[in-house]
Amino acid sequence: MELSDFFPIWNQLTPAHRAMLTDGVFRRAVPKGTVLHNGSMDCTGLLLVQHGQLRAYILSEEGREITLYRLLEGDICLFSASCMMRSIQFEVMIAAERDTELWIIPTDSYKTVMEHSAVLSNFTNEVMAARFSEVMWLLEQILWKRFDQRLAGFLLEESALEGTDVLKITHEAIGSHLGNPREVVTRMLRYFQSEGLVKLSRATVEITDRETLRRQYAI
Amino acid sequence: MELSDFFPIWNQLTPAHRAMLTDGVFRRAVPKGTVLHNGSMDCTGLLLVQHGQLRAYILSEEGREITLYRLLEGDICLFSASCMMRSIQFEVMIAAERDTELWIIPTDSYKTVMEHSAVLSNFTNEVMAARFSEVMWLLEQILWKRFDQRLAGFLLEESALEGTDVLKITHEAIGSHLGNPREVVTRMLRYFQSEGLVKLSRATVEITDRETLRRQYAI
Repeated sequence: MELSDFFPIWNQLTPAHRAMLTDGVFRRAVPKGTVLHNGSMDCTGLLLVQHGQLRAYILSEEGREITLYRLLEGDICLFSASCMMRSIQFEVMIAAERDTELWIIPTDSYKTVMEHSAVLSNFTNEVMAARFSEVMWLLEQILWKRFDQRLAGFLLEESALEGTDVLKITHEAIGSHLGNPREVVTRMLRYFQSEGLVKLSRATVEITDRETLRRQYAI
Repeated sequence: MELSDFFPIWNQLTPAHRAMLTDGVFRRAVPKGTVLHNGSMDCTGLLLVQHGQLRAYILSEEGREITLYRLLEGDICLFSASCMMRSIQFEVMIAAERDTELWIIPTDSYKTVMEHSAVLSNFTNEVMAARFSEVMWLLEQILWKRFDQRLAGFLLEESALEGTDVLKITHEAIGSHLGNPREVVTRMLRYFQSEGLVKLSRATVEITDRETLRRQYAI
């Protein structure tokens, strides 16, 4: 992917602004598991995902986690450059969920262009609004959905992302995505297994009845 | 308050852009309880709070509510103009919590200026980031705080907003702020009463031990 592929508004930028973004950009390849950004003290820059998959999540003081959203190929990570907006008063962590290749635009170059370009600033607004929408979706899930529904939804989403029914994932890791303790996950997965929806083995959850899981989720 | 008081960047706008915002603006006074904005199908415009207090909240399909944040004098409500950004994919309700006087900037005028003015667009980014931060704070409260802590925090905040220890509020209304059923609120308030933290009477919660409530909240 070219830099311009990440910005649908690329052709509306002035040549000088395009040059400023292009000149500062650098590439980085990180193995699965790398923590790329650690809260607002970091000013990592804008991450553009060329290949792979990132996870944005938050951490409690006690070390519990919950996934806010995923960033896939072609996505832009804004919160790794959150230091450029003083009104962002929360701490997001960003980690690679697969081996990932990125382009990074340093915060300073991006901020300078954004301050002068209404086009880039409006585009940035749209990116932030899209992330905001994902967090609102999550908030609604947590508030109004039961845990069995959220777990069913997570297994289906994970299966779509991985392109397989056999998910290599621990109960602990599922808990970190959903913001719940491991025991709660294990109990519900065992219930799902007793209903014939999944088959459990060591660090593996196999989906055996996709249709019922889907109904479960949508209830 | 003048229109310029709502926009710290007013003097950086061009005279033409200032005129466009000023020409479109109109005043509205609404009594307590008025629903000013009802999800993304409405395109109410930007609400500027001159006097009074607004509440932004979401509704579940079953009619449960939770307060996202309050807007006080001098605050700008962006989501009442959410139709101007296509990436905003969630439904926020806005209602007056007190008799409120507003200025309303029609979405079209605001959007036109924002598309041409990097200054206004960057300012709008900051407003959205501030609301995003409030929602992230709420998400963290829901995920990591126990209900007794959230209730203690709510009573203290309400008391600060109203300037009194005697809160005229039903258990039902507290539930709508916190996203919990009335019975859960009643049970916890009775527990607080048994601990001497509050005194309950018809549609009234009186704070009797502010210090312990504060400790309770911060646990």
